[in-house]
Amino acid sequence: MKNILIQFDTDPLPSTFDRVVAVDAGADEVFAYGGVTPENVTSLVHGAIFTRGPDELKHTAIFVGGSDVASGEAVLEKVTKTFFGPMRVSVMMDSNGSNTTAAAAVQAAARHMSLKGVTALVLGGTGPVGHRAAQILAMKGAHVRIGSRSVDRAAETCDAIRTVVEEAIVEPVGSTGEALASAITEVELLIAAGASGVQFLSESQWQGLWGLKVAIDLNAVPPVGLEGIGVTDKAKEIGGITCYGAIGVGGTKMKVHKAAIKGLFESNHLVLDTAAIAEIASEIG
Amino acid sequence: MKNILIQFDTDPLPSTFDRVVAVDAGADEVFAYGGVTPENVTSLVHGAIFTRGPDELKHTAIFVGGSDVASGEAVLEKVTKTFFGPMRVSVMMDSNGSNTTAAAAVQAAARHMSLKGVTALVLGGTGPVGHRAAQILAMKGAHVRIGSRSVDRAAETCDAIRTVVEEAIVEPVGSTGEALASAITEVELLIAAGASGVQFLSESQWQGLWGLKVAIDLNAVPPVGLEGIGVTDKAKEIGGITCYGAIGVGGTKMKVHKAAIKGLFESNHLVLDTAAIAEIASEIG
Amino acid sequence: MKNILIQFDTDPLPSTFDRVVAVDAGADEVFAYGGVTPENVTSLVHGAIFTRGPDELKHTAIFVGGSDVASGEAVLEKVTKTFFGPMRVSVMMDSNGSNTTAAAAVQAAARHMSLKGVTALVLGGTGPVGHRAAQILAMKGAHVRIGSRSVDRAAETCDAIRTVVEEAIVEPVGSTGEALASAITEVELLIAAGASGVQFLSESQWQGLWGLKVAIDLNAVPPVGLEGIGVTDKAKEIGGITCYGAIGVGGTKMKVHKAAIKGLFESNHLVLDTAAIAEIASEIG
Repeated sequence: MKNILIQFDTDPLPSTFDRVVAVDAGADEVFAYGGVTPENVTSLVHGAIFTRGPDELKHTAIFVGGSDVASGEAVLEKVTKTFFGPMRVSVMMDSNGSNTTAAAAVQAAARHMSLKGVTALVLGGTGPVGHRAAQILAMKGAHVRIGSRSVDRAAETCDAIRTVVEEAIVEPVGSTGEALASAITEVELLIAAGASGVQFLSESQWQGLWGLKVAIDLNAVPPVGLEGIGVTDKAKEIGGITCYGAIGVGGTKMKVHKAAIKGLFESNHLVLDTAAIAEIASEIG
Repeated sequence: MKNILIQFDTDPLPSTFDRVVAVDAGADEVFAYGGVTPENVTSLVHGAIFTRGPDELKHTAIFVGGSDVASGEAVLEKVTKTFFGPMRVSVMMDSNGSNTTAAAAVQAAARHMSLKGVTALVLGGTGPVGHRAAQILAMKGAHVRIGSRSVDRAAETCDAIRTVVEEAIVEPVGSTGEALASAITEVELLIAAGASGVQFLSESQWQGLWGLKVAIDLNAVPPVGLEGIGVTDKAKEIGGITCYGAIGVGGTKMKVHKAAIKGLFESNHLVLDTAAIAEIASEIG
Repeated sequence: MKNILIQFDTDPLPSTFDRVVAVDAGADEVFAYGGVTPENVTSLVHGAIFTRGPDELKHTAIFVGGSDVASGEAVLEKVTKTFFGPMRVSVMMDSNGSNTTAAAAVQAAARHMSLKGVTALVLGGTGPVGHRAAQILAMKGAHVRIGSRSVDRAAETCDAIRTVVEEAIVEPVGSTGEALASAITEVELLIAAGASGVQFLSESQWQGLWGLKVAIDLNAVPPVGLEGIGVTDKAKEIGGITCYGAIGVGGTKMKVHKAAIKGLFESNHLVLDTAAIAEIASEIG
């Protein structure tokens, strides 16, 4: 029986990126849909769960993607609500690569330090990738500062993380001016996940941080958020600090993505969202 | 040479149900199109008939589907009119599962009674599934009463059936009040194919029918048309009457659907509409 | 690693013709997109070039098609501009079959005459197929007259050809009345590539041409541009002149199309436009 991945993309034309990765991860068939919304997804889900027998349902799975993460979250929610009882298939959500990127970034850091108890700062921490990286760090026992221009929004993100990670130690901080100067004190892990074109810290600023061990910048296009980190840097030592750029994290991201797709076909009841995808990244190492 | 099924779906997003079944029936490639209309289908048909040699055309086939049966019928008509001479491929029409459901329902009945000369009543007999079930019953020599709230519409359906089944013995009847009370007299086979949420008969009403042998309800979601029949009932005896619900008929429906898809690739000149699909259901038994 | 062809079609529903040919040419997966424009193609190209390693990129390729040739040219331009450095995949453009038809037509002629120095007239020479046929003839050293109702437009086509074929010997001519009578003098190769329904020359007119050796008409539907040529004529002698109709050229066109698709997967830096596709036709012979 062929493994079928049904790609629900919230953009009008479904991502070729996700489609190629699905093929390379071993999906036998990829049914790619663009323009998927919570309103039109129900019958597509019914077609997924009502066509094969209960024992065969693990050979069908759903991938939710697209450039807009909030839209993907809404589709994921509708998909899982449409399942009932054993009539369900495994589903992965990775809109804009948010989950695999966050998981890969945290995993990159984990190669160089124990995350438990570490003091981490996630700049751009209220965006889709930053939020997810912070959540994963919190899951792993880091003390996480979530930086945003708006401390109120950072506080909302902290609250959101606490609802899914009960024991989370998270704190909202500002990401500009004096608030930022205070936020970076004693930080051992720095992740920049801001919008493209926003530089949070000059090279001398982050290089001057006492105790900083790992710095990761997730901007694929210069200028990056942490001046001086190259997009292809991969465990590169700069002034004694281990640095990663977006493409440097990309190899791990791709491995995580493919492993997650493969994992979908092992049972019919998985929901591979942030936590599960971080777990997969940990296993990959 | 790969077997290619081209799925013409009249809904904006092509059915995952039909697509999964096509894969499971052995189509090597499924080209799924949504938003297909009689206006835009011509060049798609040309691409199907002008790409492979005459001897190879049986490896390409067309499936017409979608939630709206009338739209599917219009696309089917345009597809077959676009063929010319030997430049044609086999085509199956099963919008909203109408043909496979009707064929499976009649076949379920045929396991328990000889249909020739039997008195059958199809409630909701002017809808897509009811109309088709009535047509198949007429083909098999049953005396068919077609029940509708509007006896005029039922009469139109009778006329439509007579144009394709010359020897049809069909009669329009009402499906409410006293007309219904009269219509159910001496009925041996009862099929309810009405709109969801419409109950035609209470359990005591159909249980009280002298001579009724088989009762089939095709509503997938309660409340069903014949009170007391469960959607998963499959040849279940209730008060001496053999009963089927929609899911109880579903296994046969799926077999018929897959066998029809397989059959498409045996030659390039088949039109698998109601009659041919009923034939396939008979062979499956 | 599977060979993936990404089909960018500028029509709302992607061509089944191009899709079937892609499958028959051996593409393992065809990702078909309709409604592709220069505006929405960028992220689709990024997905093609950022998913596989540099050594693997030859297993991904792009096909640009659709009924409107100018739209296809615009998409092709945007696709190639989106590539950078080694991050690229091979791409073929064949909107409305324009390149494969023109290449096959010229190749049909080349079987019967040396094209170097031959005097050729392309009627309908400013349209997509005529323009390309004229360009290929010029590449091969023919002296090409480009015929159009508007000599100004023919002159523009001549200029366009000279920008890509430096040594081209091309001349604009009229395609009606006395201008046409003059244009056909001493012509040895005649190709009609006009709009459907336009007859350029009566049978007696082109039959009466002294020196004419090969006449090709590319209209798939009668009336054709050169009266008396049948659409299925293939190297048919009519009054001592070797004649081809559109379907007579079709076998070669299909071989060229399939060979081009296969060729896409041999490296990741090919741009199969008019010149390269003509080269492939020459190799097929």
